[in-house]
Amino acid sequence: MNRIVTFGEIMLRLQPRQYQRILQADAFDIVYGGGEANVAVSLAMLGDQSVFVTKLPKHDLAQAAVNYLRRYGVDTQWISRGGDRMGIYFVEKGASQRPSKVIYDRKDSAIAEASTDEFHWEEVLRGANWFHVTGITPAISQAAAENCLRALQTAKRLGLTVSCDLNYRKNLWSREQAGQVMQELMQYVDVCIGNEEDAADVFGIRAEQTELTAGKVNHASYKAVAKQLADRFGFSKVAITLRTSISASDNQWAAMLYDGTDFYESKSYNVHIVDRVGGGDSFSAGLIHCLSKGVNPGEALEFAAAASCLKHTIEGDANLVSEAEIRQLMMGDGSGRVQR
Amino acid sequence: MNRIVTFGEIMLRLQPRQYQRILQADAFDIVYGGGEANVAVSLAMLGDQSVFVTKLPKHDLAQAAVNYLRRYGVDTQWISRGGDRMGIYFVEKGASQRPSKVIYDRKDSAIAEASTDEFHWEEVLRGANWFHVTGITPAISQAAAENCLRALQTAKRLGLTVSCDLNYRKNLWSREQAGQVMQELMQYVDVCIGNEEDAADVFGIRAEQTELTAGKVNHASYKAVAKQLADRFGFSKVAITLRTSISASDNQWAAMLYDGTDFYESKSYNVHIVDRVGGGDSFSAGLIHCLSKGVNPGEALEFAAAASCLKHTIEGDANLVSEAEIRQLMMGDGSGRVQR
Amino acid sequence: MNRIVTFGEIMLRLQPRQYQRILQADAFDIVYGGGEANVAVSLAMLGDQSVFVTKLPKHDLAQAAVNYLRRYGVDTQWISRGGDRMGIYFVEKGASQRPSKVIYDRKDSAIAEASTDEFHWEEVLRGANWFHVTGITPAISQAAAENCLRALQTAKRLGLTVSCDLNYRKNLWSREQAGQVMQELMQYVDVCIGNEEDAADVFGIRAEQTELTAGKVNHASYKAVAKQLADRFGFSKVAITLRTSISASDNQWAAMLYDGTDFYESKSYNVHIVDRVGGGDSFSAGLIHCLSKGVNPGEALEFAAAASCLKHTIEGDANLVSEAEIRQLMMGDGSGRVQR
Amino acid sequence: MNRIVTFGEIMLRLQPRQYQRILQADAFDIVYGGGEANVAVSLAMLGDQSVFVTKLPKHDLAQAAVNYLRRYGVDTQWISRGGDRMGIYFVEKGASQRPSKVIYDRKDSAIAEASTDEFHWEEVLRGANWFHVTGITPAISQAAAENCLRALQTAKRLGLTVSCDLNYRKNLWSREQAGQVMQELMQYVDVCIGNEEDAADVFGIRAEQTELTAGKVNHASYKAVAKQLADRFGFSKVAITLRTSISASDNQWAAMLYDGTDFYESKSYNVHIVDRVGGGDSFSAGLIHCLSKGVNPGEALEFAAAASCLKHTIEGDANLVSEAEIRQLMMGDGSGRVQR
Amino acid sequence: MNRIVTFGEIMLRLQPRQYQRILQADAFDIVYGGGEANVAVSLAMLGDQSVFVTKLPKHDLAQAAVNYLRRYGVDTQWISRGGDRMGIYFVEKGASQRPSKVIYDRKDSAIAEASTDEFHWEEVLRGANWFHVTGITPAISQAAAENCLRALQTAKRLGLTVSCDLNYRKNLWSREQAGQVMQELMQYVDVCIGNEEDAADVFGIRAEQTELTAGKVNHASYKAVAKQLADRFGFSKVAITLRTSISASDNQWAAMLYDGTDFYESKSYNVHIVDRVGGGDSFSAGLIHCLSKGVNPGEALEFAAAASCLKHTIEGDANLVSEAEIRQLMMGDGSGRVQR
Amino acid sequence: MNRIVTFGEIMLRLQPRQYQRILQADAFDIVYGGGEANVAVSLAMLGDQSVFVTKLPKHDLAQAAVNYLRRYGVDTQWISRGGDRMGIYFVEKGASQRPSKVIYDRKDSAIAEASTDEFHWEEVLRGANWFHVTGITPAISQAAAENCLRALQTAKRLGLTVSCDLNYRKNLWSREQAGQVMQELMQYVDVCIGNEEDAADVFGIRAEQTELTAGKVNHASYKAVAKQLADRFGFSKVAITLRTSISASDNQWAAMLYDGTDFYESKSYNVHIVDRVGGGDSFSAGLIHCLSKGVNPGEALEFAAAASCLKHTIEGDANLVSEAEIRQLMMGDGSGRVQR
Repeated sequence: MNRIVTFGEIMLRLQPRQYQRILQADAFDIVYGGGEANVAVSLAMLGDQSVFVTKLPKHDLAQAAVNYLRRYGVDTQWISRGGDRMGIYFVEKGASQRPSKVIYDRKDSAIAEASTDEFHWEEVLRGANWFHVTGITPAISQAAAENCLRALQTAKRLGLTVSCDLNYRKNLWSREQAGQVMQELMQYVDVCIGNEEDAADVFGIRAEQTELTAGKVNHASYKAVAKQLADRFGFSKVAITLRTSISASDNQWAAMLYDGTDFYESKSYNVHIVDRVGGGDSFSAGLIHCLSKGVNPGEALEFAAAASCLKHTIEGDANLVSEAEIRQLMMGDGSGRVQR
Repeated sequence: MNRIVTFGEIMLRLQPRQYQRILQADAFDIVYGGGEANVAVSLAMLGDQSVFVTKLPKHDLAQAAVNYLRRYGVDTQWISRGGDRMGIYFVEKGASQRPSKVIYDRKDSAIAEASTDEFHWEEVLRGANWFHVTGITPAISQAAAENCLRALQTAKRLGLTVSCDLNYRKNLWSREQAGQVMQELMQYVDVCIGNEEDAADVFGIRAEQTELTAGKVNHASYKAVAKQLADRFGFSKVAITLRTSISASDNQWAAMLYDGTDFYESKSYNVHIVDRVGGGDSFSAGLIHCLSKGVNPGEALEFAAAASCLKHTIEGDANLVSEAEIRQLMMGDGSGRVQR
Repeated sequence: MNRIVTFGEIMLRLQPRQYQRILQADAFDIVYGGGEANVAVSLAMLGDQSVFVTKLPKHDLAQAAVNYLRRYGVDTQWISRGGDRMGIYFVEKGASQRPSKVIYDRKDSAIAEASTDEFHWEEVLRGANWFHVTGITPAISQAAAENCLRALQTAKRLGLTVSCDLNYRKNLWSREQAGQVMQELMQYVDVCIGNEEDAADVFGIRAEQTELTAGKVNHASYKAVAKQLADRFGFSKVAITLRTSISASDNQWAAMLYDGTDFYESKSYNVHIVDRVGGGDSFSAGLIHCLSKGVNPGEALEFAAAASCLKHTIEGDANLVSEAEIRQLMMGDGSGRVQR
Repeated sequence: MNRIVTFGEIMLRLQPRQYQRILQADAFDIVYGGGEANVAVSLAMLGDQSVFVTKLPKHDLAQAAVNYLRRYGVDTQWISRGGDRMGIYFVEKGASQRPSKVIYDRKDSAIAEASTDEFHWEEVLRGANWFHVTGITPAISQAAAENCLRALQTAKRLGLTVSCDLNYRKNLWSREQAGQVMQELMQYVDVCIGNEEDAADVFGIRAEQTELTAGKVNHASYKAVAKQLADRFGFSKVAITLRTSISASDNQWAAMLYDGTDFYESKSYNVHIVDRVGGGDSFSAGLIHCLSKGVNPGEALEFAAAASCLKHTIEGDANLVSEAEIRQLMMGDGSGRVQR
Repeated sequence: MNRIVTFGEIMLRLQPRQYQRILQADAFDIVYGGGEANVAVSLAMLGDQSVFVTKLPKHDLAQAAVNYLRRYGVDTQWISRGGDRMGIYFVEKGASQRPSKVIYDRKDSAIAEASTDEFHWEEVLRGANWFHVTGITPAISQAAAENCLRALQTAKRLGLTVSCDLNYRKNLWSREQAGQVMQELMQYVDVCIGNEEDAADVFGIRAEQTELTAGKVNHASYKAVAKQLADRFGFSKVAITLRTSISASDNQWAAMLYDGTDFYESKSYNVHIVDRVGGGDSFSAGLIHCLSKGVNPGEALEFAAAASCLKHTIEGDANLVSEAEIRQLMMGDGSGRVQR
Repeated sequence: MNRIVTFGEIMLRLQPRQYQRILQADAFDIVYGGGEANVAVSLAMLGDQSVFVTKLPKHDLAQAAVNYLRRYGVDTQWISRGGDRMGIYFVEKGASQRPSKVIYDRKDSAIAEASTDEFHWEEVLRGANWFHVTGITPAISQAAAENCLRALQTAKRLGLTVSCDLNYRKNLWSREQAGQVMQELMQYVDVCIGNEEDAADVFGIRAEQTELTAGKVNHASYKAVAKQLADRFGFSKVAITLRTSISASDNQWAAMLYDGTDFYESKSYNVHIVDRVGGGDSFSAGLIHCLSKGVNPGEALEFAAAASCLKHTIEGDANLVSEAEIRQLMMGDGSGRVQR
């Protein structure tokens, strides 16, 4: 069986009802999320042994986050407990021309302040075959970046496959900082994942004829981006998700994969959005799930694209769908006919 | 005044909020529904005397179902009370590429176990001019099928017009069982109603050039289906609803009618869906409402199509719209401009 | 700084959850609204000094309306308190082919019965540079019309710029009454605003080749409408919003402006609707905000169109968006990409 | 079977969640209520044929009130439809030392403006054996008082037993007006019902040694009150409910009955309150249910007291309990042990 | 570390909001519960290794129940998946004199139909030191009783301590059936737990001077009951919870324990109730937690009584409190002062 | 008119529904609160000019807090905007023996990091007659303590009356730190307010024969506490609230006042609790409201006690009651009879 370890932050996500603005809210719906945590939940839903590593305070609020992970089958035994606070983010859901807005309140969270001796990576990674992290974790703090590095080094040494979703967050660090830190980490990475903006933001590798806020995404030009990434860092695979944002309510969604020789392009989906947060993470999970089991790149890409297409129809950060549901869509049934 | 009797099961329908999955739900919204019950409520909304016959336990949960029917004006005096449990079904609302999912928990419900001497059809049907049933009721249990048969025979003998919506449910019986039982019942039926799948499922009569999960519905080929049905069973009228499922959020909706001589095809509607469960039932109700009052087939079809178009914008199983609202749409105003 | 005074009614708006019909509702969400009140809140959100004048009873229900205005920064010091009741309206949100429905219960409200000596316009308008009213206020009652007239006369005398949104409401008065009363008020108005129906309803000035319930709005023909309005009443500017109603869920939204010499036509937006009530009011607010600060007509129009496009994505009557958000859309980013 | 007709107003009752104040509310829960409507629902719950007569507008809001009555089994066929508005009242639930607050907005409701030729009392009352009204209905308007009088006269002439709950409402009329109008109506009344304040408010008959806001209710002194009422108006029975208000959360509840010869005093209940609105109406319903079936006065009183004790544990205006539940409490089981 | 295995049914518990009756409900809150499942969750909350064994269908509804158990840390690896349906029960929360009501719909659930070869008790119980079951499980069906017996026999053979909560449910079997089946099971039981009614219901051993529905519970007379139980079946310990039901809102709660030599009586608590379902289960969990760790009987009893006192303040079936919270109350702080 | 300035922190308060634990919550209700902010809102509700000074970030979450203050009439013009985050606290409501629990997440909030040049006290306090602060503000950070000191010094210099609620919070600082810092501030204070624990916690002045967690509060012994406080710091008045915590659901509430010569003891209230957070703040507000207007000490005390009694029946931190409501209770009507 697959055993996949992810490392990062899980935060409390608070969100006004429906399409209310924060200014209107009288209650927040509670979800939990974070790049790697979303991948971990998704993998557990797909039947993999999914281990999520982080640090969280001892209070009930943090326990509720642990309980959320356990609820969906994630192995939480390696979560370190201590520190003062957990990260929080507030999501205001957009619609039509109004974009979703996120306010982060994650500074000085337990994981940001965790020391390097809190995680015994040898022990944690023993028996696992895959390790995944995103560009968010090293951006949280220097300590987190250091913990990332150690995890990657250990994973590599123990022979695990390592994937990394670039996931650039401009509110956490500058493009320069990101480029410098990520550059170092990339040497341990086998599978690199990014969205239509990441390669440009982190490494300055830009797609031509693409203007994102105007809703233009040139799929072809991303081939060059993928190739440059693979060439520069020696990745065995590079996958890029391609979101064309018609509006906050309607997106086109597709992805491409380069395995050093061939380019694969997935089916493109017109998605009417329920919640798009976590779309990229669900793609990573789908890809990891397949690649870790030896599925061929083309099928893995289609699976990952179908999985993440479905994520856009699910409330919350995590992709709560089963392998069977993904396969049904992947096989061509996107008609949404009632399943009785 | 019209007096229309329907016979079947009414179930407790439980549904997570909005687009939540069952795995995420912390509360279920309560609705009630069932093929014939939906027709009954819709007819009462249209001003007809609508009598719904079923069997329900004596507990408060079942009383709440009776109260739901009374609330919308359905005559519940002939509902038999007794038995252990009522049917329940859980509906998870789909969106975009994710289909709605239904979990049924209806086995051994009161109506499934009702004996044939519980319904005094002579008395029940006295004064009525129309009787309606769907293919769901005979599928519930042998006893229910027997009760159906007796109702149909009595209705016929008393001179009522009889309509039947084929409504094949694969989780209740096999295509073979359905074909066999329905075949016998068809001899008492005047008006046969089906959706784009039913004739094939129940009687093996297939529409050409139609591939439902790929979103292809060839309207023209259904003429042949309707004609074959009329020819085989001697129906005075055959009506077929034609749903083209673009996705769980967007459907095209139309219908056609064959009256033994002419084929009528309704306007086609692009529907952005609020709740599509009960769409077919609302069509049946619209058709029965018109035909029972002598409205001509073409107008009856347009009325039924407009009625069921509106149903897709209503939460719950039943079509809570008025005759005036249907006529406004039927007359061409689908602009959705605010009515002040 | 801009100081803008508006005068009208603020009502309690009650609305079933989501897309429920009034017949299904077990709770009403509480909002507050009214043509001028919506403009007032929108102006306060844009940073203007916004003063709303009305009369409200002394009870807690009315106090809650005052508190709503204060919450968003509206100056409520000139609201007269007394009288028996406040207006209420019930909004049932439509979807797809089903239109939204509004039931008004506003008769004999405090503002409808306010005498002419309750508002000391000299004092109220001192220090203000703009006064705005809509065609709803004079339609409420003869007393309200008289109060309107006095406000307009005083505003004019004190040198304020005066804007009026024609806003014809057929349930409040007949076209004849409206025409007569509005005609008198128009002499004090500088900037006239209307939607695609108002000029025809109030003054009989019709756009050619336009059939609203069929979703046809001929933009070009509104130039003639605007010019006729300007010519007849001597307005310095005439602005008209142009809504093409595809369905209750999807609208096209644009606007045009005539300044006596030139015609400006705004960008056209395809809007997937969250709540379209108050769309026109948010346009007025956007226009007033710009014109009162000397922004040129073309830019003011684009700003107002973008502002009101966003309003359609906001729950409730008022346009709770900031100047920055409007400018982002106006500058071309309608992609709805998440703002982190 | 019993057939009991009640006449009065049914209003939309809007209430903030739980213990929120109106100033805090963002939603109102919807209930319906009114003195006689509450009695009608309660009687239907007890299995009586319960006919409620009123006038309501034709809009959906009023239809929802009709549907509420139908839901619980009330016969609504004699409700006249027309007029502009229905009464509304807002209830803020109190707790501990904070009293519940009610804001009425019932002026000019359909029933207040109904003319005397809208109700065909001969027809309505045919086949009924009991007629009930409260002091609220004649207080609504002169027209309503006139309609009351005609109903009472017809009821008397047709041989029905007539009951009246004095139910003085100081916000509807003065004590003088009430005394005058009620005096005339009393001649048609057989069973007079009141609370611990009504006799004093309407007819100036005061209980000694009672100070209500201080929580002192002298049960004994109400014997004299009952006797004086019976002597002055010739009632066959006088029943008085005796509420000792410890706080908004805890009340003592009892009642007494005088049948011209004997005084009966019910058990006294310590009630922890869920919703006390409609407590008196549930007492009336319990009493009418028993007396109309010939139950002896002592048992009828205990039944009515137990019924209304239970009402205090039910949300909303109406007493949604069954005869069996009332009898269980009446027989002594007030332990609240779980019924599995 | 303690490893405690429990075996029984977990059901979907549906409940109207707050104090609504089922007849009023428009939504059900979702909880999960069942005698042994409640004990299992409580033990996991107390830090024990808690293994819950049952059978559940494969659908999402059942998965949600598994997820509920996982969320609170229960080991679900031995849950067998299959069968058609899961048990459901509907809880209507009582208040004051109105009792809570429960409607069960648990017939033919997966666990009721599980065959004896589905549970590999040797394997399941390996490494555990305690096994717990209640009288509900053998009452579900003959197959469930047989599974119970096998579990008990294996537990005994493997040297586990065995506890059984008599928990008589009159809607599942008669007193005679219960007595017969339970008699056989008792030979494997070390620690017997019951409430103030169970010994009488199951074994005919009655407490003197006790009248439950009148709120009289004679603590002293339960000593004799405990002694008789211990003498007849050779239990090493007998614990009895003693609930005095003042009303559905207020209970007195205490417990006693007999260890073959001494009688221990716990502190008595006046509880203002939030949710009393699961009170007995939380007592069992507290007792097992202590006894399995060798805590002395007197302290174990006080711990269990304090734990179950707190349960009455927690919504849902399970006692979501920590050991520290229980100890704080046990040590005497029942003041409810805010913990900041 | 009174103009009262308060200075402190306002935080986002998040709370699970009803009596849910944080571990169970799926949504948090949004309130805002903080010692001084609660006083400010209460004073605005009582009709005073109430100015609240703090620092808050510029994001929408903080704007919502400002809007909350504006909604209830607080003057927010002096709130400084900037900084990264605002304080958050999570409140879990207790019941019966289970205490309420508060988790604070307020470190590094904008106000904690505000520099001393952000508040222009001369300007802010001009025209005001009273300044109020609590012991929480200086405990937040050294910078906040410094800002406090400057405000107090300026207030004193400008001749305002100064009140301080000791309000010791053990999670913010140690008793030693508190004693030291508060000692310095006390020289500027005229009116000192504390609860039954504060004097002991901050200044080591203990009441005899009082054991709080056991529910024993010796009112008499607090006279000595008040006298010692007045003697040591030269306060013109010392007021102490006296809470006897029967349980989390029921408290006794009273207060005493010493004015240097006389001791006043208020009426004692038995309160059934809705929300007790902010009880002390509502007492401060009541006292300040009266004393600032020259009301005599005895009446001021009774007013403050009645005000704060009512607070316990209001959801949220702030005391949303009017002067009339307080006077009604103060005059003796605590019966909770419905106000129609």
